[in-house]
Order: sequence, then C-alpha cells, then structure tokens
Amino acid sequence: MIERLCIIGVGLIGGSLARALREAGYCKTVVGAGRSPENLRHAVELGVIDSFETDLARAVAGADMVLVAVPLGAMEAVFSAIRGSLADDAVLTDAGSAKVSVIEAARRAFGVVPANFVPGHPIAGIERSGVAAALPDLYRNRRVILTPLPETAADPVRRVRSMWEVAGAEVVDMEPVHHDEVLAATSHLPHVLAFTLVESLARLHDKAEIFEYAAGGFRDFTRIASSDPVMWRDICLANGAAIQQMIERFIDDLQVLDAAVEAGDGERLLQIFGDAKAARDRFVHE
Amino acid sequence: MIERLCIIGVGLIGGSLARALREAGYCKTVVGAGRSPENLRHAVELGVIDSFETDLARAVAGADMVLVAVPLGAMEAVFSAIRGSLADDAVLTDAGSAKVSVIEAARRAFGVVPANFVPGHPIAGIERSGVAAALPDLYRNRRVILTPLPETAADPVRRVRSMWEVAGAEVVDMEPVHHDEVLAATSHLPHVLAFTLVESLARLHDKAEIFEYAAGGFRDFTRIASSDPVMWRDICLANGAAIQQMIERFIDDLQVLDAAVEAGDGERLLQIFGDAKAARDRFVHE
Repeated sequence: MIERLCIIGVGLIGGSLARALREAGYCKTVVGAGRSPENLRHAVELGVIDSFETDLARAVAGADMVLVAVPLGAMEAVFSAIRGSLADDAVLTDAGSAKVSVIEAARRAFGVVPANFVPGHPIAGIERSGVAAALPDLYRNRRVILTPLPETAADPVRRVRSMWEVAGAEVVDMEPVHHDEVLAATSHLPHVLAFTLVESLARLHDKAEIFEYAAGGFRDFTRIASSDPVMWRDICLANGAAIQQMIERFIDDLQVLDAAVEAGDGERLLQIFGDAKAARDRFVHE
Repeated sequence: MIERLCIIGVGLIGGSLARALREAGYCKTVVGAGRSPENLRHAVELGVIDSFETDLARAVAGADMVLVAVPLGAMEAVFSAIRGSLADDAVLTDAGSAKVSVIEAARRAFGVVPANFVPGHPIAGIERSGVAAALPDLYRNRRVILTPLPETAADPVRRVRSMWEVAGAEVVDMEPVHHDEVLAATSHLPHVLAFTLVESLARLHDKAEIFEYAAGGFRDFTRIASSDPVMWRDICLANGAAIQQMIERFIDDLQVLDAAVEAGDGERLLQIFGDAKAARDRFVHE
C-alpha cells in the first residue's frame, strides 16, 4: 500500500498510474506536482489526483512514493528541486525512456545516486499525451523495466515493483546501458524514422496531394510521428549515442537495399523482405 | 453492368472486387484464372468466383471485363497469354501498384498499348493477402487511380470507372509517371523502411529480446513489413527509379537528423519532430 503518492508531471504516464492505483485501492492519497496549475487543476477535476502543488519540495514532503514522469530534459531540475525534501523512508522512481541519462542526472543533483532511487521505464507509451488521455489500464500486460544499480537498496526496488504490478504490468530488471540499447532499437529508431519520413514528405511541394493518396499502411506506419516532439527531442539528446549507432546501422542497411534496387537484384530483395516478414510474423503479436 | 468478369489472379485485390460487384448485383458471372487450381477451387468454395480456368486464353474468352491482379513481375506474361483471345469489345484493366512498368509490359506484349486497356491502381492494400482475406467493402471510400494514355479509348475508361465506383471507391485520373512518384513517396518508401528495419533488427544477436520489448508503436510501425515479399520485390523492380530517388532523399534527411543528434542540437530536433507531428495531424486522418 502507498499512503501518499506524489506524481511529478501529471500527463499520460503519471496520470495512468494514478488511475490504476486508485482503482485498485492501492493508494490513499495522490498529490500531483508540475509547472502548470491549469493542467493540475484539470487532473483534479478528472479525478486523477486529489490535490496539487506547484512547489516541488512541498509536493514531495510526506510522500512515501514519488514518481517523476517529466520529459528527460527536465529530470535533473526536478531532482535538484526535491533534494532535501524527501522523507528518509520515501522511495523515488521515474518513468524516463532512457535510463543512463536519468541516473547521471540523479548523480549530479544528489551528489550520489540515492539508495532509495529506483530508475524505471514503463513501456506503454502511445502517441497521445496529456492527463486527459490517461487510462487506468494503460499498463495492463505491458512491461516495466527497472534498472537498479548495485547501490540501490532492495526494499525500494520491491516497493516500486509491487506498485507497477498492481497497475497490471510485468516488471523486469535490466542493466541501464542494455536498456538504452534495446530501446534505441525497438522504440527510438522507429520514432526517428517515422518523424523523418513525415517531415521529409511535408517538404515536397505537392505535399497535400502526397498525403491524400496515403492509405491505411501509411497511417499505421506514421502514427508514432504524432508523438510529443519535446519528449522525443529529449530522448534523442539523452540516448544520443545508442540512437546514432542504430541510425547509422540503418542507413548502411538502407544503402544495401538501394543498391539491390539499382542492380535489379530481385533475389536479394526477396531475401530481405522475406526475412523481415518471417521475423515480424514470428516475434510481433498483433 | 458486367456480363462476364474475368479476374486473373484471385487474391485479396481481385477477390475483394469480385465480392463487392457480386454483392451489388453488378456482375452476372465471375470467372477466376490463375496458376493454382487449389487457390481457384478455394475461391469457388468461398463464393468469390463462379468458375475458374487455368488456361488464361480460355479464361478471357467471352469476358466483357478483364482485371489482371497479379504481381507486377507477372504482368507481361499474362498479357502475352491473353493476346488474341480478348473479345473486340472487352475492356482490360489491371491493379498494379506501379503504372509505367505495366504500360510498358502491355506495349511489349501487344505491340502497342491497346485502346481498350485502362491501367489502374486501387489504393487499398492491407498487409494480409490471399483470397481468404477478400472483403466486399475493401474499396469503400478508398481511392482508385486510373492512368489512361492519350491512345486509351473513352468508353473503356468510363466502364472501369463505373466498376470501381460500384465497389465503393472514389476514382481519380493521373499521369502514369506522376502516379509512380506519388506512390513511391507514400507507399513504396514506407514499405521499404519497414522491411529494412525489421530485417535489420532480426540480424541483431539478441533479436528475441529486442522484439520482446517492442511496444504498440513498433507493432503499428512495422505492420507493413508483414506484406507479401514477392509483391514488394516486384514493386521495387518495377518502380525502381522513383523508389531509389525517395530512398536517397530519405537517407539525406536521416543524415541531417543524425548530425543534429551528434551535435546535441535540440532546437533542430524539435523543429523536425514538430513539423512532422503538425503535418501528420493535419493531413493523415485516423
């Protein structure tokens, strides 16, 4: 049970967790915190949080669980603002899509990575954002990756794990660096490709006509290009090295394909497309 | 009204048209043709066609409308096989995803592009294929592009247009070269990117784990990589020049993004992602 949950950044991710925990009766009080009083008032009206604070130090005072669900670029400022205000037995966790950079932000803000800080990442984003999109079942059957360090205490990890499990998620542990590589491949690279494609097509002079003839496949393919640009800028800055590695590998592979098209090498094209279809049909479940 | 519709290649595209026209009572008889008696027997059992022929010359004899819905690489052989067997007042059309190459295939097979040949392309593909996936409403509110030439007669164009309209489609005319450029941008490039991404990830040594952490966005993004590899090999071979142009433009844009990540240029990243989101939210309707 959580007595007082403090959610810093009440959007889709934080709001959905609050909804899930409230529905499960796992949480007595939820206080929201953030920069925008309008957004926080809206969250109270929606029944996602009980009350709010715009002063982060006051928001975390008395909380036994604090979730930081702000864009990666705002993590360090949040950590600095709450330094010294967390109760001794409080647990601090986050929902950032890259983990090494958040751990480094915590190290800079607190001087050390606190033993009660459990870096985490719920893999449950959708292209919508904002507290109005929050769903109590967003985490049902989704993965949450925790990346505790050797210095992380066991009890905070256990408490964060239980919280996400109550929300319906399957919780797994991973090394922070490995997390960042896996997510660069499966999430960050696809987002970069979708954003780049849509922006590229939008620069064509007949863009209205171009998009007019886009069919269902294009709609699905580009859905993630409707994601929040600030969040994705921050992810690219926070996990740049791993993302660059994936981008450059992808460019190499695309050049191989381009050469096969140039050469009219149908055998090679069939092999690439066939391997892709086989892998997707095997590994990705609709 | 169509007296006798002959569909060469009874898969998703041809089968769905047959279903739509039969439901609308627009067509007295449908004869299917193709290489696989099993597939054609299955199509009869499903009620998609009335009868079938594996000899294409016999299949088209007596038909007043012939739709060729085979992979692009098989078009010329089909045209050659039916040369001399089409009735004088019959209309010939196709459903190929690239148009210049089909027109050239017709020119080679028939000596000239016949006045009764109406090149066409229903933009309604889904990643599934085969006659069992055929739906009577596949074309409802979808676009069908016709690319008639100066030598194409008016009456066949009118009859093909009416046929697709009865199936629920909105029919538009376009220059063949322009069609191929528009489709390279909105369909062929996205498919190439999705196939390349999945094949690229499938070569990573920890591929099972990689795909395990892929979330909903990845599923949507890669759905088109489950499309038919033979069909897409043929599209890449048939529309190679336009596709290469789009691939190379995309690589340039991806390199710009890569450089922005490298430089930590958040302003540029935000601009690219913001422009993409704005264009998608404006032009692509969910």
